[in-house]
Amino acid sequence: MIKDIFNKVQQTTPLVHCITNYVTVNDCANILLAAGGSPIMSDEINDVEDITSICNALVLNIGTLNERTVQSMLAAGKRANELNHPIVLDPVGAGASKMRTETAAKLLSELKISVIRGNISEIKALASGTATSRGVDASEADALNAENQQEVIDFIKKLAISTNAIVVVTGKTDIISDGKTTYLIHNGHAMMSKITGSGCMLTCLVAAYCAAAPDNLLEASTAAVTLMGICGERAYDKVNTENLGTSSFRTYLIDEVSNMNSEKLLGGMKVETI
Amino acid sequence: MIKDIFNKVQQTTPLVHCITNYVTVNDCANILLAAGGSPIMSDEINDVEDITSICNALVLNIGTLNERTVQSMLAAGKRANELNHPIVLDPVGAGASKMRTETAAKLLSELKISVIRGNISEIKALASGTATSRGVDASEADALNAENQQEVIDFIKKLAISTNAIVVVTGKTDIISDGKTTYLIHNGHAMMSKITGSGCMLTCLVAAYCAAAPDNLLEASTAAVTLMGICGERAYDKVNTENLGTSSFRTYLIDEVSNMNSEKLLGGMKVETI
Amino acid sequence: MIKDIFNKVQQTTPLVHCITNYVTVNDCANILLAAGGSPIMSDEINDVEDITSICNALVLNIGTLNERTVQSMLAAGKRANELNHPIVLDPVGAGASKMRTETAAKLLSELKISVIRGNISEIKALASGTATSRGVDASEADALNAENQQEVIDFIKKLAISTNAIVVVTGKTDIISDGKTTYLIHNGHAMMSKITGSGCMLTCLVAAYCAAAPDNLLEASTAAVTLMGICGERAYDKVNTENLGTSSFRTYLIDEVSNMNSEKLLGGMKVETI
Repeated sequence: MIKDIFNKVQQTTPLVHCITNYVTVNDCANILLAAGGSPIMSDEINDVEDITSICNALVLNIGTLNERTVQSMLAAGKRANELNHPIVLDPVGAGASKMRTETAAKLLSELKISVIRGNISEIKALASGTATSRGVDASEADALNAENQQEVIDFIKKLAISTNAIVVVTGKTDIISDGKTTYLIHNGHAMMSKITGSGCMLTCLVAAYCAAAPDNLLEASTAAVTLMGICGERAYDKVNTENLGTSSFRTYLIDEVSNMNSEKLLGGMKVETI
Repeated sequence: MIKDIFNKVQQTTPLVHCITNYVTVNDCANILLAAGGSPIMSDEINDVEDITSICNALVLNIGTLNERTVQSMLAAGKRANELNHPIVLDPVGAGASKMRTETAAKLLSELKISVIRGNISEIKALASGTATSRGVDASEADALNAENQQEVIDFIKKLAISTNAIVVVTGKTDIISDGKTTYLIHNGHAMMSKITGSGCMLTCLVAAYCAAAPDNLLEASTAAVTLMGICGERAYDKVNTENLGTSSFRTYLIDEVSNMNSEKLLGGMKVETI
Repeated sequence: MIKDIFNKVQQTTPLVHCITNYVTVNDCANILLAAGGSPIMSDEINDVEDITSICNALVLNIGTLNERTVQSMLAAGKRANELNHPIVLDPVGAGASKMRTETAAKLLSELKISVIRGNISEIKALASGTATSRGVDASEADALNAENQQEVIDFIKKLAISTNAIVVVTGKTDIISDGKTTYLIHNGHAMMSKITGSGCMLTCLVAAYCAAAPDNLLEASTAAVTLMGICGERAYDKVNTENLGTSSFRTYLIDEVSNMNSEKLLGGMKVETI
């Protein structure tokens, strides 16, 4: 299944419309190209419906939201829903401000979202409407550990059911659930949190993978999360060997995505089903 | 001639005002610096006339256009025209949406544009007002091949005459024409289409080169296109030797521009005059 | 002192709210992470007060200012002042346009600014309201030399006193003054001016360091400036050894920041007190 979805992305070049923040947008475009997809960015309300119509999936990332682009997200999202394109929501900084928390909630209530991808603090804020986030990073109080793991998993399953979306919570261990099946992903490396955009890039990859496998969103999301994690591990190995730093890590991370094949992907996956 | 223009860029540090998309803007700024130019970005209508006045050329790139910045493009363009600064238009995604196609046409009709730089689908959309573009990439149906080459060249020559602009169409083979003389450029590498911004960066280089040789726009554009292509070839060789990927390619591409000299440029050019 | 401040940044992960330009914003975020800080970008007026409230410092960079974001800068700045968060102002392109010169002056007059960081042309424009800037680069006429050094230092000291801010003027030699104590920093490398964002990134580092040592803004600024300069020197050595170019320099610059320790910092500092 994972192999089929990986190959499908390579063969179909899914076109992903991204309404995303201006901090990591270049990395998002480059990782989509590296993965075999094709990005197009547009956030103007008179442009987004046309653009989304020629695409295969939509990313809504609220990282540097403003009043103008939130309207564009809603307009693009409605059009994407009409066309049955998967929408992936990245609630960057939900919990860090009233506007972010409310915008994420609004997008979730007015649109049919296929996948929600965030860190645990953002996902908790989205679910509860309360602020627990430390800026755009997960709060330490929210970090997954042996004691709270079952509680966190139950929370994520419940959210997946109530939103009818795949929920992808990334962190040291990534958790992916559709409410019935839940995967824990043990790939990735801590250096991914020392560059900006690891989360935003993953959100875009999830969108490309969902575009290629719209009837298998859970597996598509899992393929994208493991791909990103494996590439993070491989990039770290290179950085460590060559005694480099975090900016080289970013470069190598995207390099690894561009050089990925199904053998490396299947061989590197550390997926636990629960 | 090419050598003189190359040296002129190095000696005069042309200042290029870019109103461009937020996806590739950082790469645009860095490649301008690498090439010996100097970038300044400004898209606020109360700022653009002052900024363009101290510059030597203007780039109008509609990659992430919005209503606000389109007005700024028109205002900056009018000021640049008054000052006889070359304007280079990059109609990113023309054909992919009504707004992009119409905006590109509007800029072309209201301003004196010196050079139009796009892929074949964008240029066709600009010429015809019809949509053939697959997002921001050229459509396969539009790709240059032995059968359609003469037809495409004739189309480009006609567009150059009707717009009174140099037309630069980039792809596997790049075509540059002022309507009378036409060059085919056989430099470049396919990996340039696997990173975002190859086109946008080239547009900025064309602007810097035109600023340095405003009386020789055809040769200036040709110098910039061959420079970019040769750097793409050299960057790919490094990536291939070192077994790296697309993000390293982006880094090496700009590195090569920063290390270019007139010997490498003249030695590497593959220009066919037709 | 410098060592203590360096360690404090590592230990406290200062959260820096950046309202900054879209050209270099990704580099700003990555260098903050590399230095041990944490960035959050927000420029929407309904979002900035909440965001700044959870942060430890604020960066106001006018590089791609527009009417909307200038209002957000004022709102965020007022909230930051209420909370006694250090604000670092980067008057990018002051002197290059009326709007930039006036906006920089307005921010300085309506807000309590802790540190002003710019090149000599920008700082002169800010002080005088007159235009001497060549785009976003320092004008050659303004460059520091043996003849004008004392005059420039006196000017900077006077500005520091009249604004009640630390003034950081970067160039071949960096000058830092609070009006009483003045430091000349002889670190850095000329290649820093061949990439975009060296100044913007430094401004963000100054903010992170000031957040970690709010009672020692002069020493905190000095630590950040020397850190940046030493990393520039080290990055250049690598680029030179490996025969690479300006884009690799940017990567290695951030790498070096991520691998810095207090021994390298103290060992590499070239600070002259005057």
